[in-house]
Amino acid sequence: MKLLEERILKDAEVLPGNVIKVDSFINHQMDTELISKCSEAWYEAFKDAGVTKILTIDGSGIGIACLTALHFKVPVLFAKKSNATSKVTDEFYSTTVVSFTHGHEYNVLAKKKFITKEDRVLIIDDFLANGSAMRALISLVKNAGATVVGCGAAVEKVYQGGGEYIRRLGYRVESLARISSLSDDGKIEFC
Amino acid sequence: MKLLEERILKDAEVLPGNVIKVDSFINHQMDTELISKCSEAWYEAFKDAGVTKILTIDGSGIGIACLTALHFKVPVLFAKKSNATSKVTDEFYSTTVVSFTHGHEYNVLAKKKFITKEDRVLIIDDFLANGSAMRALISLVKNAGATVVGCGAAVEKVYQGGGEYIRRLGYRVESLARISSLSDDGKIEFC
Repeated sequence: MKLLEERILKDAEVLPGNVIKVDSFINHQMDTELISKCSEAWYEAFKDAGVTKILTIDGSGIGIACLTALHFKVPVLFAKKSNATSKVTDEFYSTTVVSFTHGHEYNVLAKKKFITKEDRVLIIDDFLANGSAMRALISLVKNAGATVVGCGAAVEKVYQGGGEYIRRLGYRVESLARISSLSDDGKIEFC
Repeated sequence: MKLLEERILKDAEVLPGNVIKVDSFINHQMDTELISKCSEAWYEAFKDAGVTKILTIDGSGIGIACLTALHFKVPVLFAKKSNATSKVTDEFYSTTVVSFTHGHEYNVLAKKKFITKEDRVLIIDDFLANGSAMRALISLVKNAGATVVGCGAAVEKVYQGGGEYIRRLGYRVESLARISSLSDDGKIEFC
């Protein structure tokens, strides 16, 4: 999406180690008008897919998912992150994620009663990098016997391979800005 | 707001220890059409207050804040929670909160560059109970020398006193469902 790419070029910060910060408009401060435009793009892409629920993960994905859900007129379910295994009870579907950014493991939980076999789930998140969070969300949906109709990410760091991995598994992934490389002098290239 | 009160009576669960769970429509699964109605109510209440930014806190507040921001056409800033004091750098306004629900302390952080003295901030969150999170958000705004125009909570547990405390400090608080008591047999009374 051109609008998002332009905003990234204008306002994102590139840090050493292939890190890109978009915290002035996506994941600390949020430009809701920009995100609303993103949500329209996902609606265009998935409006005929029979979506019954939008799934995201605790944190910055929630706002993006809620704005997207307004178009589909379906509920949002946000999976919770927990470091405490004591919280992983029979009430929940759960899976474990290793955080690329912080290096630690955490559990991702969704209450069983909120995903049924009949659900057709669209997964939405702000970032798709190595894909660990999105794969965890796919795993929660599969545990429920429900259908993943596709995944939407605002920003995909293509060079980290998570998007390609998920597409090879057969899922449709719609990323709105696909970054192919970041250079040490701060240059951002899109696919 | 009658619609929210009716939904609470229909779908909330009352647990021992004055706990009310609204995770089927507010803070795990989210009914975005209901929350959109909540956001209209806050817009009606604060539309003449010159709001320039909506502040909330990491987690379920983010979605509610984003839907509200669509009406005001302003950015959302969500304060981050962190257990690691190493993250509290000069870049951030920070304050410490003791969680009523979980009993531990955590830091609440907002990047200084995202709140200026000129900002007129509306604080939005899902719950107002003992008020610790909302007081932390007020404190971040005051640290920045900005103005708190008011606070909006979807559900206020009036018997925990947080709302009264904040109103006595002189802030306008608009809670959409004000619970005066929960009984052990699951009865919910509104103010």
